[in-house]
Amino acid sequence: MKVLVVGANGQIGRHFVKLLSEDPRHTAIAMIRSEEQISFFNSLNVESVIVSLEESVQEIAAAMAGCDAVVFTAGSGGSTGADKTLLIDLDGAAKTIEAAQQTGTDRFLMVSAIHADRREQWGDEIAPYYVAKHHADNILRASGLAYTIIRPGALTNDPGTGKIQAGENLERGPIPREDVAKVLHHALASEQLHGKTFEIITGKDEIADALNRL
Amino acid sequence: MKVLVVGANGQIGRHFVKLLSEDPRHTAIAMIRSEEQISFFNSLNVESVIVSLEESVQEIAAAMAGCDAVVFTAGSGGSTGADKTLLIDLDGAAKTIEAAQQTGTDRFLMVSAIHADRREQWGDEIAPYYVAKHHADNILRASGLAYTIIRPGALTNDPGTGKIQAGENLERGPIPREDVAKVLHHALASEQLHGKTFEIITGKDEIADALNRL
Repeated sequence: MKVLVVGANGQIGRHFVKLLSEDPRHTAIAMIRSEEQISFFNSLNVESVIVSLEESVQEIAAAMAGCDAVVFTAGSGGSTGADKTLLIDLDGAAKTIEAAQQTGTDRFLMVSAIHADRREQWGDEIAPYYVAKHHADNILRASGLAYTIIRPGALTNDPGTGKIQAGENLERGPIPREDVAKVLHHALASEQLHGKTFEIITGKDEIADALNRL
Repeated sequence: MKVLVVGANGQIGRHFVKLLSEDPRHTAIAMIRSEEQISFFNSLNVESVIVSLEESVQEIAAAMAGCDAVVFTAGSGGSTGADKTLLIDLDGAAKTIEAAQQTGTDRFLMVSAIHADRREQWGDEIAPYYVAKHHADNILRASGLAYTIIRPGALTNDPGTGKIQAGENLERGPIPREDVAKVLHHALASEQLHGKTFEIITGKDEIADALNRL
């Protein structure tokens, strides 16, 4: 598959693009925001396209041309305000979904967040972020695309273990970003995961086994 | 009709509740955030219910019990940040829509904003607000409720003129909040406006005539 990775320069994005670049079945296109981010992808021999999620649906669609799948792992991050949460995490996702519909890019993987459908778990400080993720996921589920929504627990920079727990309703727990990237890689070509939403944290099962049981 | 007015203490909300209180066909319930807001509604002989849009769907649904219609004219306003835009303008609307679905309160009027479906018109500063309104409106349109989405131009505190222009795609222009309230009042019982989204600015037509032509 030819896969547009939206948010390729994020921490999960970089792990994921590296995995794709080592897999002869797939070709990654890294969608990034600026020229300065390009060298990492050049070093992997991965093509980059510079488009910001604040640009139009048309520009995102142009970046997607010829792709078979989109992986959305972009996020405005903790260092910007809730205005960027609205523009990137919600509307950037919505525009990417519209671009996928317009270009017929049917396969769509979304990196979401554990408990994104459970308002009573959102707490106060992070609640605005959850609002954006919850509604972006709902837009994807209503899109008609062959989606998979992956909701990791608390992200860490620990080395991946390759072992996870996966399910529809998990207790909060940590998971290395590297393992989230591995789950994306496994899920990409899995037709069994079309139309599914699930949570992942570090656990005892091999990724392939945990995903097969969903 | 018994009408729950969400955001009753807002500037449009107060005008609208006053109009309802003078119309023997309708009974208003003012949904407000705090005890201090209650005296205005007491003076109109209008019942109040104290529920914040940051509370749960269940609490909003309880406020809605026995109502035939909901008018959503709440907004976090310009003095709070984009975190409240997410929590109130987007998720507060989404929770109110869910409460209406759960309670079978079929009629739903939404006060939106002119150009909320046209990203190219959003500019920079107000774009995060537009993201919230755009997606709240989309949630309502997909809800199965008998909705009407009313999108006023630039709101002013001038006295109402009772004359508007209404249409699906207007140029930006001003409109007094008092006239927006009058449009809500006219639209409330209009079956012809079910499932419609339209923009309003000050114009030359009587409100009833302008709405009848939509």
